[in-house]
Amino acid sequence: MRIGIIGLGLIGGSMAIDLTAASHEVIGISRRQETCDRAMARQMVHHASTDLSCLAGTDVVVICTPLHAIATTVTALLPHITADTVLTDVGSVKQPVVASVSKLWMNYVGGHPMAGTAHQGIDAAMSNLFVNRPYVLTPTDQTPAAAVDRLNQLIRPLGSIIYRCDPIIHDQAVAWISHLPVMVSASLISACTHANAEALELAQALASSGFRDTSRVGGGNPELGVMMAQHNRSNLLQSLQDYRQQLDQLINLVDKEDWQALELALAQTQRDRPSFVDP
Amino acid sequence: MRIGIIGLGLIGGSMAIDLTAASHEVIGISRRQETCDRAMARQMVHHASTDLSCLAGTDVVVICTPLHAIATTVTALLPHITADTVLTDVGSVKQPVVASVSKLWMNYVGGHPMAGTAHQGIDAAMSNLFVNRPYVLTPTDQTPAAAVDRLNQLIRPLGSIIYRCDPIIHDQAVAWISHLPVMVSASLISACTHANAEALELAQALASSGFRDTSRVGGGNPELGVMMAQHNRSNLLQSLQDYRQQLDQLINLVDKEDWQALELALAQTQRDRPSFVDP
Repeated sequence: MRIGIIGLGLIGGSMAIDLTAASHEVIGISRRQETCDRAMARQMVHHASTDLSCLAGTDVVVICTPLHAIATTVTALLPHITADTVLTDVGSVKQPVVASVSKLWMNYVGGHPMAGTAHQGIDAAMSNLFVNRPYVLTPTDQTPAAAVDRLNQLIRPLGSIIYRCDPIIHDQAVAWISHLPVMVSASLISACTHANAEALELAQALASSGFRDTSRVGGGNPELGVMMAQHNRSNLLQSLQDYRQQLDQLINLVDKEDWQALELALAQTQRDRPSFVDP
Repeated sequence: MRIGIIGLGLIGGSMAIDLTAASHEVIGISRRQETCDRAMARQMVHHASTDLSCLAGTDVVVICTPLHAIATTVTALLPHITADTVLTDVGSVKQPVVASVSKLWMNYVGGHPMAGTAHQGIDAAMSNLFVNRPYVLTPTDQTPAAAVDRLNQLIRPLGSIIYRCDPIIHDQAVAWISHLPVMVSASLISACTHANAEALELAQALASSGFRDTSRVGGGNPELGVMMAQHNRSNLLQSLQDYRQQLDQLINLVDKEDWQALELALAQTQRDRPSFVDP
């Protein structure tokens, strides 16, 4: 297939590498000529350009821009593609993206490949980034079955585990397991900096793996955190309210010194965690 | 020196290994003969016994029992030692332990070596467990300087980074960076299990490193979690209340859609985290 990839960062670049390796003809688009040159030098793409008109005749275009730029990118792209071209995106929130892009283009399937590394940008792009990682597709009742089929065919060689669900269910799920942890973890860091001076100094010296793991995502990129909150606000708020209730229950048990109930609650979380992640 | 170690689990056993290697005469005490046999077979100690009277003539006795058993162990030990013997313990909460043991024995210095592995018991005991890990000593105004000196001399070869502070400051510091994260993390697991059925199923499939790290200590040993809460209740409650305030501030920013303030808050936590742990 002839494939366009708009945005050659970690996700777009890594996808370009794998799709080029799978014998597709890959055209990469970046706003910056320097990134195009880098993509060509690394042979990640067959052609790279800053000009969307290069995407004429593509079978699939994958939009790998930041969330807020997806709809405007689609609008700019439309004059250059024909009705047969399937569009998809890789945004980490789906309902608002699917709602706006669906209005612009029929042949569109929302997508979210859940892979990443600690690094960003084209230089972090790598082969096999998506192997054994979830790749969520969010077609709606209006999405043509042929578009979903073509996209499935394209991404199968990436080695992802493909899920298919409603955009709203996707956004609820990522609110709970991806966006809520950022707020929970950031609040831990804020709280700890409020310890009294003498205890704070010792806490900073003694903090180890427990604090390290629990605070990791709260110490991450602030722009990503805000982006998640902006685009998935209502689901995030719901999960935060529910979290606060659970926290209040634990606080209450400690306050009442109900150690038996606290042990039951912690035994329950110990049992429940493996249903989300391996121990 | 002639050293007694009461309780041959991960901490007591690992200490026995290092102190035996440092040419001290180490006598291990366990409630179970099987553990004594194992300690002898592994040559972790010079002698192992279930009988506290073997500790006659020791220069230092390190009490490595669970927190709740420390004071009763000291009471049982007293008939067998002389006034010169220095006692210490390895309990993870210090103020209540120091308060009760100080009344029983003058020559006592509270201690907390902050090391561990995912495993417990004598079979998990290993050499060099304490290297480059914090070891907090909590002498009070009444603690004889000679006792602190002898203990310092004993633990120096373990390779720990030795801190010295008031028991109350220790307990505040560990409430913030060790006990609070358990409650924060457990609440996350509880909250996520309350997502609606369809989103829950997807969340369980999609959960990855962010959820894994943030939920790790909340999915740990429930008895340890309860033990921390019981013995460090007031400091933990204080940290939980402060945490809840920080959480409420973030919830409020998301609710008001004050994205600029949210970005400032997350940029602050990003800056603050490295003062606790390496990035």
